[in-house]
Amino acid sequence: MKHETEITVRFNEADPLGIVWHGHYVRYFEDAREDFGKVHGISYLDFYRNSLAVPVVAIHCDFKKPLRYGDTIIVVTKYINTRAAKLNFNYQIHDALHGTQIATGSSSQVFVDAKTFELQLTMPPFFEDWRKKQKLS
Amino acid sequence: MKHETEITVRFNEADPLGIVWHGHYVRYFEDAREDFGKVHGISYLDFYRNSLAVPVVAIHCDFKKPLRYGDTIIVVTKYINTRAAKLNFNYQIHDALHGTQIATGSSSQVFVDAKTFELQLTMPPFFEDWRKKQKLS
Amino acid sequence: MKHETEITVRFNEADPLGIVWHGHYVRYFEDAREDFGKVHGISYLDFYRNSLAVPVVAIHCDFKKPLRYGDTIIVVTKYINTRAAKLNFNYQIHDALHGTQIATGSSSQVFVDAKTFELQLTMPPFFEDWRKKQKLS
Amino acid sequence: MKHETEITVRFNEADPLGIVWHGHYVRYFEDAREDFGKVHGISYLDFYRNSLAVPVVAIHCDFKKPLRYGDTIIVVTKYINTRAAKLNFNYQIHDALHGTQIATGSSSQVFVDAKTFELQLTMPPFFEDWRKKQKLS
Repeated sequence: MKHETEITVRFNEADPLGIVWHGHYVRYFEDAREDFGKVHGISYLDFYRNSLAVPVVAIHCDFKKPLRYGDTIIVVTKYINTRAAKLNFNYQIHDALHGTQIATGSSSQVFVDAKTFELQLTMPPFFEDWRKKQKLS
Repeated sequence: MKHETEITVRFNEADPLGIVWHGHYVRYFEDAREDFGKVHGISYLDFYRNSLAVPVVAIHCDFKKPLRYGDTIIVVTKYINTRAAKLNFNYQIHDALHGTQIATGSSSQVFVDAKTFELQLTMPPFFEDWRKKQKLS
Repeated sequence: MKHETEITVRFNEADPLGIVWHGHYVRYFEDAREDFGKVHGISYLDFYRNSLAVPVVAIHCDFKKPLRYGDTIIVVTKYINTRAAKLNFNYQIHDALHGTQIATGSSSQVFVDAKTFELQLTMPPFFEDWRKKQKLS
Repeated sequence: MKHETEITVRFNEADPLGIVWHGHYVRYFEDAREDFGKVHGISYLDFYRNSLAVPVVAIHCDFKKPLRYGDTIIVVTKYINTRAAKLNFNYQIHDALHGTQIATGSSSQVFVDAKTFELQLTMPPFFEDWRKKQKLS
């Protein structure tokens, strides 16, 4: 299961060296993940309607080539199947024009009660159902 | 009533031209306003403890001289007295080293119920008390 | 001359009150202005290719109604004609779904040499040409 | 070699769940790293004066406990010695009040020519000298 998101680098995302500040990639990942979520029915709001929040507990990014203002990138977001009560994604960023690899990364999220923030140690029913619909096991 | 806040410009706040992106000044203003609030007992948390939120309803900024990475600025935050149910501040930013004027600005906030977001048409008791303590009228 | 830009509010743009932090509107304005610029040939890169930068020298925003995560807005960007060596825009933000007015604002930019940052006291030839093409006077 | 940096969480850094958006930790790391750099003579500006830039090529963060608006944290930044032409740091974030562990992370930077962006395959003289002064080998 994967999804592609196109993002154009903003002027205010580049630093004095003319390249995109590395912290912005975390937002690119989140934008791409949300995009995936909207298409596949697991956006933040979908979880929230089921009394769940999905805070990020780990993030990793490897930066291969610098990005500049005006560049357009494709973020390929891939759901990584796991039996653990987690939501894992991988990300591949490449230049939309030349296909050059820009960055790779991953994120891991847990399920918590949206009100109490209590950690859900097993997969919540809403997400189990989602996985069944996707024929994941 | 005024308060001075020193801020050092971060590398990631400057754009490809090497100068600070104008949107960051809104945060400088908020940081300085919060600093004022902490010293004078009207920080966001002080309002919140009194079931109030103080959303910004207007912001203005005039940019006089560019800021660069590594520059240190002083934001002078001034409470502007008014009988209206508003919280008005003026800001003067100058270079900490040379005193050069960098920017001037202003903000206006209203009082709303922190839960319902209902607009308070008259000054809330907590803020009336604060004004009395400051001998404002 | 005007242009409409659709923007969907990100989760990470809303604050603990659940509403969009006011500083983000400055970026909405810039995104909308860049969108206008790309369509009409006066984006940051168009200026840059003509050795010009167009730093913002004034910004103003009035906030009418709060925005929440998931809301979609339309920013209507309007070029405001002037004979001065300035680039002035007005912005009207409304809710894409209900048409409710969310905010109004304006920005003013000057023309500077992209290398030396020297202020251009008269309208630069590139921009004069652009105005002629648009039949502005 | 380590350095401690105190940071107070801003209102605008918390999201609608009331907790700090995970992307901000990347900035906390950078602020702490710059703080380390200023104290130990390897800030961005120190590198720049030696015609070097030090772009981040990898970042990792594990989030243990949520942060809320008003929380004060200590970031402990530790230089990780390596013979490779890299600049590696580890970060430990804990709550300033209770000492609770909030997050851990790491970053890796390379040395490039500040003008050409050419990757320096061996440790640049400026950094070799710095290492000698610190008695690192």
